[in-house]
Amino acid sequence: MRPIAVTMGDPSGVGPEISVLAMTHNSRPANCVLVGDLKRLETAQKLLVETGRLSPSVRPIGSLVEVIDLGNVAAGLPWGANSAEAGRAGYEYVERAARAALAGDVAAVCTGPINKESWRLAGVPHTGHTEALAALAGSERFAMMLVNGGLRVIHLSTHTSLVEAVRQATTERALTCIELAAAFLRAAGIANCRIAVAGINPHAGEAGLLGSEDQEELRPAVEAARGVGIDASGPWPPDTVFARAILGEFDAVIAAYHDQGHIPIKMLGLDSGVNVTLGLPFIRTSVDHGTAFDIAGRGIVREANLLAALDLATSLAAADEI
Amino acid sequence: MRPIAVTMGDPSGVGPEISVLAMTHNSRPANCVLVGDLKRLETAQKLLVETGRLSPSVRPIGSLVEVIDLGNVAAGLPWGANSAEAGRAGYEYVERAARAALAGDVAAVCTGPINKESWRLAGVPHTGHTEALAALAGSERFAMMLVNGGLRVIHLSTHTSLVEAVRQATTERALTCIELAAAFLRAAGIANCRIAVAGINPHAGEAGLLGSEDQEELRPAVEAARGVGIDASGPWPPDTVFARAILGEFDAVIAAYHDQGHIPIKMLGLDSGVNVTLGLPFIRTSVDHGTAFDIAGRGIVREANLLAALDLATSLAAADEI
Repeated sequence: MRPIAVTMGDPSGVGPEISVLAMTHNSRPANCVLVGDLKRLETAQKLLVETGRLSPSVRPIGSLVEVIDLGNVAAGLPWGANSAEAGRAGYEYVERAARAALAGDVAAVCTGPINKESWRLAGVPHTGHTEALAALAGSERFAMMLVNGGLRVIHLSTHTSLVEAVRQATTERALTCIELAAAFLRAAGIANCRIAVAGINPHAGEAGLLGSEDQEELRPAVEAARGVGIDASGPWPPDTVFARAILGEFDAVIAAYHDQGHIPIKMLGLDSGVNVTLGLPFIRTSVDHGTAFDIAGRGIVREANLLAALDLATSLAAADEI
Repeated sequence: MRPIAVTMGDPSGVGPEISVLAMTHNSRPANCVLVGDLKRLETAQKLLVETGRLSPSVRPIGSLVEVIDLGNVAAGLPWGANSAEAGRAGYEYVERAARAALAGDVAAVCTGPINKESWRLAGVPHTGHTEALAALAGSERFAMMLVNGGLRVIHLSTHTSLVEAVRQATTERALTCIELAAAFLRAAGIANCRIAVAGINPHAGEAGLLGSEDQEELRPAVEAARGVGIDASGPWPPDTVFARAILGEFDAVIAAYHDQGHIPIKMLGLDSGVNVTLGLPFIRTSVDHGTAFDIAGRGIVREANLLAALDLATSLAAADEI
C-alpha cells in the first residue's frame, strides 16, 4: 500500500507533539510520511523526553519516519499562541499533502489540528481544513463525516449559527449528503447501505405540528435518494435515530446541524471520534480536536485521537486499494 | 413513607399492560396505588397471561395493589386507536393523582403514557402531562428534566420547532431553569450543585462568530444565577458538555432545546430515561415513551421504563421525607 501523509498541524499547537507520539507509538501504521517541519518535531520530541512522556532511548523522529520537511518554522516560535507565521506554515503542510494525494503518491491524508484564527491572520482564504482541501481538489460537493466506533454521522452544515443551519438544510444539500454517504459506504465495502436522515425539529416535526422543514425540505430528499436506488429513510425523530444506528438499524445518519451529530459522537468517547471529509478525490481523515493552545508545548497531550484517525485512514485506504 | 400514585395512562395504549407488569414485578416499590380502570387492568392482565408474559398463577391485579378505580373505560374500547373517550379517561387519572398529591395523600406521582391527540379529541385544554399538572397545581415556573443514569438534563423548551426554540431561549427562561435545577438538586441532597448551561450554537457561538444568542441570552442568565449563589457555568460548547457531565464535572446540564437534551439521554439507553417535572409542589416522574399504539394490546411491551420511573420517584420521595 502507498503511504499515508500525516500533516503536523499548526506548529504552535499540540500537532508536533501528537505527531511525534503517534509516530513513536507501536500501534501506528507501518507506512507513513510526516509533512511538517523537522526542527519543530525534534523540539517536540525533546520536550516529551523532558516531561517523561517519551523515553530518552527513542530514536530521533527523522530516523523513525520519512519527514517531508518544509523548513518553514522559525526556531523561537512560541507554543500556544496565534500568529500569521504559524497559520501560514500549517496551511503549507495541508497544501503539500493534498498535492501528494492528487498526484497519487500517497493513499490518504490524515491531518493534525490547525488553528482557524491563525489561518485568518496568515490570509489563508479558507475557513478550515475541509474547505481548503475541497478548493485544492476542485470539489464542490463535500461534507464532514464523524466516525466513532460503529456510528457514522454526515453533517448538512457545520460551523454556522443554529438558525442559519436550519436555513441551509435544503433538499438539495440533504440529497448531496445522502449521495456522498452512499458513495463512501459503498467504497468502504457496504454495498446495501442503509442511510437514516435525522429530522430538524423535535419528533421530526410531528407531521408539521412542530415545524414544517422536515416535510418540506428533508422528505423530498429522502424520496429523491430512493428514486436513484439508495436505501435512505426518514426524516426520523432526532432523539432516537443515533441510538438506533448504534444498535445496528442504520449504517450512517445524516445530521441536520453541527451539534445534532456531534453530541452522539462525543457521547461515545471524547478521544475516539474521527473526522472524515466526503466528496474529495482522495481519502482524508483528521483528528477531531483543535490546537489545544492551553496545553501545547507542555508534553501532556494525548495522541489517542490521532492514532484513531490514522487507523481509519489506513483501513479506508486498504479497502480502496483492493 | 406515603404511597406513590401511578396513573394507568391512556387506556388504548400500552399503559394498562405496563401498569400490570410493573405491579407484578418483584422489583417494584412496596407502596403504590394505581389510578386507573380496574376492568381495563384485568383485561390487560388476561392478555398478558395469554401471550405468556405473565404466569396464570399471578394473583389478580386488584388484590396485588390498591387500585383507585375510576370506572371510566367502556368494555369494548379498542387498543391502539385515538378516541375522545380514551383521552378523557387518561386525563381523569392524572387529575385524580394530582389531587391526591396536592392533598398530601401520596408522596409522589408517576405517570403512564397519555396520547396528546386523544386529549385534543377529548377537549382537554393542555398539550401534555407537564402542562396539565402545572395547571392543576397552579405552577407557573416549571421545566422538564430527563434523567438517565448519572445524567440530568433540564430543557429550556420542549415541543416546539427548532427555530421557535431558539426564540424561546431567553435569559429569563434560562435563569428559571437554572433555579429549578438547583432547587431540585438541593432537595435531592446535593447541596453544592454544579449546573452547566449548554450553548445554543456550535462551540457556544465562538464569541459571536457563530450566532449571538449565547452571549446575549444565556451568558446573562449564568451571571445572574451566580449572583444568587448558584454554581452555574457556561454557556459551554454543546457537543462535549453532556459527556463532561457524565464524567462527573457537572450535576446537571441545562439544554437549550428538545433534541440537544434528548439525544444524549437516549444514547445512554432507550429504555432507561425517566422524565421528571420540576417546579411542581409535589414529586412527579413519568415514563419517557408514548402510548405505542402499534404494539398496544398485544402483550409484548416492556415495563422497564415504568419501573425506572417508579424507582426514581421512590428515591426522590425518600429524600424528601427525611
